Amino acid sequence: MITASSGNHGLAVALAGKTLGIAVTVYIPVGASPAKIEAIRSMDAQVVQVAGDALASEMEAMRQSKLTGMPYIPPYNDADVIAGQGTIAMEMLEQGGEFDAIFVAVGGGGLISGIGSVFKACSPQTEVVGCWPSNAASMHASLLAGEVIQIEESETISDGTAGGIEPGAMTFTLCQQLIDRFALVSENDIKAAMKLLVETDRWMVEGAAGVALAGMLQYAPDYRGKKVGVVLCGRNISLEKYLAAVR
Amino acid sequence: MITASSGNHGLAVALAGKTLGIAVTVYIPVGASPAKIEAIRSMDAQVVQVAGDALASEMEAMRQSKLTGMPYIPPYNDADVIAGQGTIAMEMLEQGGEFDAIFVAVGGGGLISGIGSVFKACSPQTEVVGCWPSNAASMHASLLAGEVIQIEESETISDGTAGGIEPGAMTFTLCQQLIDRFALVSENDIKAAMKLLVETDRWMVEGAAGVALAGMLQYAPDYRGKKVGVVLCGRNISLEKYLAAVR
Repeated sequence: MITASSGNHGLAVALAGKTLGIAVTVYIPVGASPAKIEAIRSMDAQVVQVAGDALASEMEAMRQSKLTGMPYIPPYNDADVIAGQGTIAMEMLEQGGEFDAIFVAVGGGGLISGIGSVFKACSPQTEVVGCWPSNAASMHASLLAGEVIQIEESETISDGTAGGIEPGAMTFTLCQQLIDRFALVSENDIKAAMKLLVETDRWMVEGAAGVALAGMLQYAPDYRGKKVGVVLCGRNISLEKYLAAVR
Repeated sequence: MITASSGNHGLAVALAGKTLGIAVTVYIPVGASPAKIEAIRSMDAQVVQVAGDALASEMEAMRQSKLTGMPYIPPYNDADVIAGQGTIAMEMLEQGGEFDAIFVAVGGGGLISGIGSVFKACSPQTEVVGCWPSNAASMHASLLAGEVIQIEESETISDGTAGGIEPGAMTFTLCQQLIDRFALVSENDIKAAMKLLVETDRWMVEGAAGVALAGMLQYAPDYRGKKVGVVLCGRNISLEKYLAAVR
């Protein structure tokens, strides 16, 4: 199998490959988290680093898939992958009951497409809030533009959501339909959210999870007395980078 | 209810009191973790700080219980409390199956008495390894002496296990019967274990949990190819102290 990923999707595919005895190659941006690259390699997958952002890695992975005939597992632009992400929402509804709002970080849009689809079907009164780092909000800019556009992103601690959107991605249409509210957060907001979480609940999370929590904190006054869910979508960050963020 | 605790037991009793609508007072050593004191207060329990170690807090709590008639819930010297700790071993056996060895940090000895009792009854081939900070190993010294003795302890990051043993404690006899092997670890060993755990699995744990993991790492060559369990018995440490430990 071939895949492209900023990290966590690659980890998931590497684990699937290892479990099923299938060789896996992950195309990953050169700037990806070293913690994620190491974790993927530890599951016997091959890692190929590609210059540019997550979109560049996707393009290269698709090219290699066509060249070699090895199946390509997209990181977000795929109905099965999106449905898999939706199982998070099933678990939230099973374990948590009703929610007034849920906060989800958005990169390629696969996570919020899956989670949002389940909530709209099973709990339509739940508000779906998409959260982005202000520094890297490609899907947000595309939603405002009404079409997938490429923008210049800057550095963000949320490496898991960074990068452009694949032109024609099905997640764009889903995000148009599913996201009720947008939250844009600064790098300092993200780090403050990561720090708050470790102080109160001892959860060490990566930047993308901090984005969702920071989005919730930004709108917290609007949800006083209500029940909200925040998707903590990863903890794969190097200790060094983490300590620098919460220090 | 009145209790005495270095922190985590006090947290548990405070939660029980809050759930059942019963007022709780926790006697706690002056040097206890501020994170634990804050957490106990956040559950509406009253905290009384007592000069000296955990044993001094226990003595004061028992005295107040006799004076006021309010029931005293001992932190370890109590069959019901020990049985409660044993439920951890039930969960380990249910979820993890067979173990060749388990590593547990020892303070007053309640945790290892409960866990060891269940393993000896349900899985007698499992080795029970008691782990201590070299700086604060009162039960270890007592086991070597063949009776509960009071020793001078030094500062340890494992505040959860620090302090002397109550004379006549039932945990002393249980520890004599249940512990198969002793591990003594340095403060640096404990911190290295805490750092390893956050680097590999992103678990932020307190010093007492680091003691159990450090004990396992010390004996790791003896258990190559075998299945061991390590009880991560707490995560209640202030962020500042934690960062200083794993930096």
